[in-house]
Amino acid sequence: MASFEVKVIGRVSSTLTDLEAAPRQADEGAPEAWLVFEPEVAEGLRSLGAGDEIIVVTWLDRARRDVLSVHSRGDASRPEEGVFGTRSPHRPNPIGLHLVEITTIDGTRLQVRSLEALVGTPIIDVKPVLSGEISER
Amino acid sequence: MASFEVKVIGRVSSTLTDLEAAPRQADEGAPEAWLVFEPEVAEGLRSLGAGDEIIVVTWLDRARRDVLSVHSRGDASRPEEGVFGTRSPHRPNPIGLHLVEITTIDGTRLQVRSLEALVGTPIIDVKPVLSGEISER
Repeated sequence: MASFEVKVIGRVSSTLTDLEAAPRQADEGAPEAWLVFEPEVAEGLRSLGAGDEIIVVTWLDRARRDVLSVHSRGDASRPEEGVFGTRSPHRPNPIGLHLVEITTIDGTRLQVRSLEALVGTPIIDVKPVLSGEISER
Repeated sequence: MASFEVKVIGRVSSTLTDLEAAPRQADEGAPEAWLVFEPEVAEGLRSLGAGDEIIVVTWLDRARRDVLSVHSRGDASRPEEGVFGTRSPHRPNPIGLHLVEITTIDGTRLQVRSLEALVGTPIIDVKPVLSGEISER
């Protein structure tokens, strides 16, 4: 398969350290977190402000990339499903999408509400939420 | 910056061949398209069906990766903004998010409604839409 190089533009700073304890979905209770960006991308952040809703795109670097079927929500009593029909982190490209609200901005650090990602998780992109929809080109 | 290798799991087959003519947002009129997946990931698709809403994650391989500020919607009369506050394809990791509905499935080819991505655009992930929200871990 062809491939591209995805750059780590920042990391998640959070109290979440345990994959098993991490909530499966944001509404199940996730802590506040800081998004800590590389100084090289500071210019790209300048239009963001407290109160903005953003989509944080992460690279779930502790996920497995060699599985194509999983038990939904990690529950072995459920039937296996193809990973593209689930939100499992395990998939060929372990990309995470997180809808969060910015609460504070401090230089290249953004504090956000309720981010369900482990400490150290690489950040690979940030996008604004456009009037309830998420498509783009 | 650290980096990871993102694999191309499929490509967009579409009538959209011109970057300038492509609609800026899905609601501005985009054609139906086929998502053509690599045979290696077929197992991951088996839970998807016609009528499902999915998020297609693409790698916008014709975008520039060395810009951090752009004129919003490509309009030079608008002030420059940081790319992370816009949906511009130009950004350090040119990731596209597309919310689409599956209309037909034919093996490892999925037909979708209204996809605003150029022909040949690499696909890097597919996720189901969960009750109106897009976060995950």
